[in-house]
Amino acid sequence: MPRRRSPKRPEKLTHVARAVDRPSDVGILASYIAFPETFVSQAALEKFDGAGEGKYQIGLGQGAPRPRSLQADALAAAAAEKMAFCGPREDIHSLMMTAVSELLSRYGLSPADIGRLEVGTESLVDKSKSAKTTLMQLFSNNSAMEGVTSMNACYGGTAALFHTLDWVESSAWDGRYGLVVCGDVAVYAPGPARPTGGAGVVAMLVGPNAPLVVESKLRSTHMENAWDFYKGDLMSEYPQVDGKLSNSCYIRAIDKCFHRYADKFERTSGKAFNLADAQHAVFHQPYTKLVQKSYARMAFNEALREPAGAYKALAPFAHLADTEASYVDKDLEKACLAATKADFASKVYPSTFAGRNLGNSYTGSLYAGLISLIASQSLKRDDRALMFSYGSGLAASLYSLRVAGSVEEQRIACDLHARLAARVEATPEAFSKAMEMRQMTYGRCDYAPQPHPAETLAPGSYFLSRVDHNYRREYARVPPAVARAVQKPAAPVEQAVRQAVHMAGRALRR
Amino acid sequence: MPRRRSPKRPEKLTHVARAVDRPSDVGILASYIAFPETFVSQAALEKFDGAGEGKYQIGLGQGAPRPRSLQADALAAAAAEKMAFCGPREDIHSLMMTAVSELLSRYGLSPADIGRLEVGTESLVDKSKSAKTTLMQLFSNNSAMEGVTSMNACYGGTAALFHTLDWVESSAWDGRYGLVVCGDVAVYAPGPARPTGGAGVVAMLVGPNAPLVVESKLRSTHMENAWDFYKGDLMSEYPQVDGKLSNSCYIRAIDKCFHRYADKFERTSGKAFNLADAQHAVFHQPYTKLVQKSYARMAFNEALREPAGAYKALAPFAHLADTEASYVDKDLEKACLAATKADFASKVYPSTFAGRNLGNSYTGSLYAGLISLIASQSLKRDDRALMFSYGSGLAASLYSLRVAGSVEEQRIACDLHARLAARVEATPEAFSKAMEMRQMTYGRCDYAPQPHPAETLAPGSYFLSRVDHNYRREYARVPPAVARAVQKPAAPVEQAVRQAVHMAGRALRR
Repeated sequence: MPRRRSPKRPEKLTHVARAVDRPSDVGILASYIAFPETFVSQAALEKFDGAGEGKYQIGLGQGAPRPRSLQADALAAAAAEKMAFCGPREDIHSLMMTAVSELLSRYGLSPADIGRLEVGTESLVDKSKSAKTTLMQLFSNNSAMEGVTSMNACYGGTAALFHTLDWVESSAWDGRYGLVVCGDVAVYAPGPARPTGGAGVVAMLVGPNAPLVVESKLRSTHMENAWDFYKGDLMSEYPQVDGKLSNSCYIRAIDKCFHRYADKFERTSGKAFNLADAQHAVFHQPYTKLVQKSYARMAFNEALREPAGAYKALAPFAHLADTEASYVDKDLEKACLAATKADFASKVYPSTFAGRNLGNSYTGSLYAGLISLIASQSLKRDDRALMFSYGSGLAASLYSLRVAGSVEEQRIACDLHARLAARVEATPEAFSKAMEMRQMTYGRCDYAPQPHPAETLAPGSYFLSRVDHNYRREYARVPPAVARAVQKPAAPVEQAVRQAVHMAGRALRR
Repeated sequence: MPRRRSPKRPEKLTHVARAVDRPSDVGILASYIAFPETFVSQAALEKFDGAGEGKYQIGLGQGAPRPRSLQADALAAAAAEKMAFCGPREDIHSLMMTAVSELLSRYGLSPADIGRLEVGTESLVDKSKSAKTTLMQLFSNNSAMEGVTSMNACYGGTAALFHTLDWVESSAWDGRYGLVVCGDVAVYAPGPARPTGGAGVVAMLVGPNAPLVVESKLRSTHMENAWDFYKGDLMSEYPQVDGKLSNSCYIRAIDKCFHRYADKFERTSGKAFNLADAQHAVFHQPYTKLVQKSYARMAFNEALREPAGAYKALAPFAHLADTEASYVDKDLEKACLAATKADFASKVYPSTFAGRNLGNSYTGSLYAGLISLIASQSLKRDDRALMFSYGSGLAASLYSLRVAGSVEEQRIACDLHARLAARVEATPEAFSKAMEMRQMTYGRCDYAPQPHPAETLAPGSYFLSRVDHNYRREYARVPPAVARAVQKPAAPVEQAVRQAVHMAGRALRR
């Protein structure tokens, strides 16, 4: 007869908190986005696939319709409706290595400045070894670095960011920067989902006294077990997708997170939360139209809390609250979109720029949105930006950033508009060939991947050079620059020289 | 001509810290380990495989040699040299669901008490959807729960624990418990590595005022890019293994982490760190012999820092410090083992119990060691336990726990010795058949997994009932108890009834 166990609860959670020093204003100090140099246009894809004109562009909201107030944004107009893609020589590791090395060099950081490196991705090329360890190749004299890979569909980047923020605020923090790297290579089987692919990796430096402070006390989360998008077929790079379910999961996550955020806001500040309290809203962006609907849905949720408030026009739909029917009710959707048209243009659309140019970068998508917002020069001191992260499966969080300093340095270092404009357009044929080549080599070993027909690699980019007979992956780097382009390095400091050489190389290339 | 970027560093890290409340004594409040009910004995496997007698038992240190001081430990003697295994109806999710539901019920916790759930595993059955989201099925009225899956070989559990500790100390903490779930199903291709498999999942409750406080300021890490063990063949459940490389990586990680921990200890306490400052040492345990060598190696490292100290006998080997040669030098190894023989028996061996009975549970291994230590009743108030976590690829940390309260409740709730003793022994034939069946179904869809010949599932265990045509995984549960066993439920509270019923069911089964 076994001993009876005592079902006693652990000691109560009430405790006498000890006052200790905790760094303040922890957030994002620096950012950079790496992406492939090749893209295919949605307009060309529509034609090639024999899809109706505008299906990919308007149906997915990739590019059109552009709010009237932004018609003058020549860069946005020129660069809308593009999807980035990788061939067989680019994988998630090579993009991440490029992002990290560029971030370090563009901000003049040494590898020794980094005390933690967290990765978020769902583009796994190994079921055990993390992408984080591959990145350790860039930190050869600094191996004392916590962090591994966080995984849950498109949410891994947010998990990695939260882990890093918490570390800086914890007693384990050693005073060094945290580095968060997130992004994916999003590819789909041939068919209607294929134009919703994309690629990109964001690297962010985290620490105290940041110009973009994360309001950690407000972060709000919703998680559930769902099968809206997943990768259960281990033998394929392509996901299993239930688009309709994914949309309703996304909208339900918006509902849950909005109310939880608003509740925390109320508890913390003593006043009700309204969308007017945020000057910007950035979303995980599978495609642009969903972003527009999501912001519109937030207005509906605000109307439920404040029926006589700014969105009183939506109050008559209150009976649809918390119902599945509300996810597909066309009248409600139309009313929400109408009620938020102007706000969407000014508060949301600027952050969709990278998404419209790269397609979906999964874990990188929300942070590509932040970099777009920085590039738009619309972030003012004391502004608040809502950040909504969603990963199928599902995991979602709504949190916010407060602008506490200038992000001009980040805008210049990232140089988003010019770098996107300098990419090379590939034909749909070249894109299809690249996808075929990826599929042929996926999961294989003992081969050296070949460039696809339209492949271009920027100076300084890393690429996959070989997968050996035992699945070990080897990487090489395109020389960071053409030395002869530099006539007089400004200073003999190696770091500065490398950077100047690199920049000159990029200038030459264009 | 693109704009020149300014290579300015972000604002300096020096900052005026703001004093805020941070919870104290954050650590492990409760723990539980779930494992399969079937095991195969290493002695029977040796015979079956035609390996030399003692090869698996002594060569791997699984079971023998037992230190003389522990000969009296009848439980250890009876249960040494066993390897747990799962058939096709048990996967990482089912083990985790069992671990979480048992932890909640044995400690009388409600799902609403949990504010964060972090998973560490490398037994991925999906490349996008995290095991964490599957566990959300157990928290149907509480979806506000941060955390996803942390992945890096056997290190994911430690990453998940660190994330959760940091969260409790951060401004984002909402006052609820954190829950860490880590473990794996370790299987190998037929051949010499197969007897180094195993299975198990540990669940741990994290919060302030814990009886096992994590000394976060001392945690020390070493990471590098290595190919010692990984899973690059996505089509197989089996890893690629380079055992020789793995051993030297493990030992190098011990060296690096030991010195970093000792440095931090010195900075924090103002005095030198010696192994005598820790009364216990728990290791990631691929097999027991490596644990013995690792503790011995720590003594060598201490001798390098204190040539006239407790391990002065090892000082003459100082010339081997930081050399690859030192990893394989037999004289050094022999001297280290001799110098630490008594300490190994008293400070390390008690924590190897679960590992010797379950085999390797990868991310669960170190924490199965902690549960073994708790079961050994050798933890005294104010004791310190060193914890060494290693994941191939590689990621390693050395940290420590301080005993600040009684762990008796955890010992009773986990009931390790009795539960291990109550398992069912399978023949090597049944074990081989179960492995074959796993291999046949791995990566497949549209099937209902069948029980293997020796399958036994404990009351209350979850199991995989179906993988549908689109790779969606469905789970069922063995009824938690035989209802007729309960004559008078103690109280009408549903939770209490469920628990009583469950306990009674287990008692009946034995």
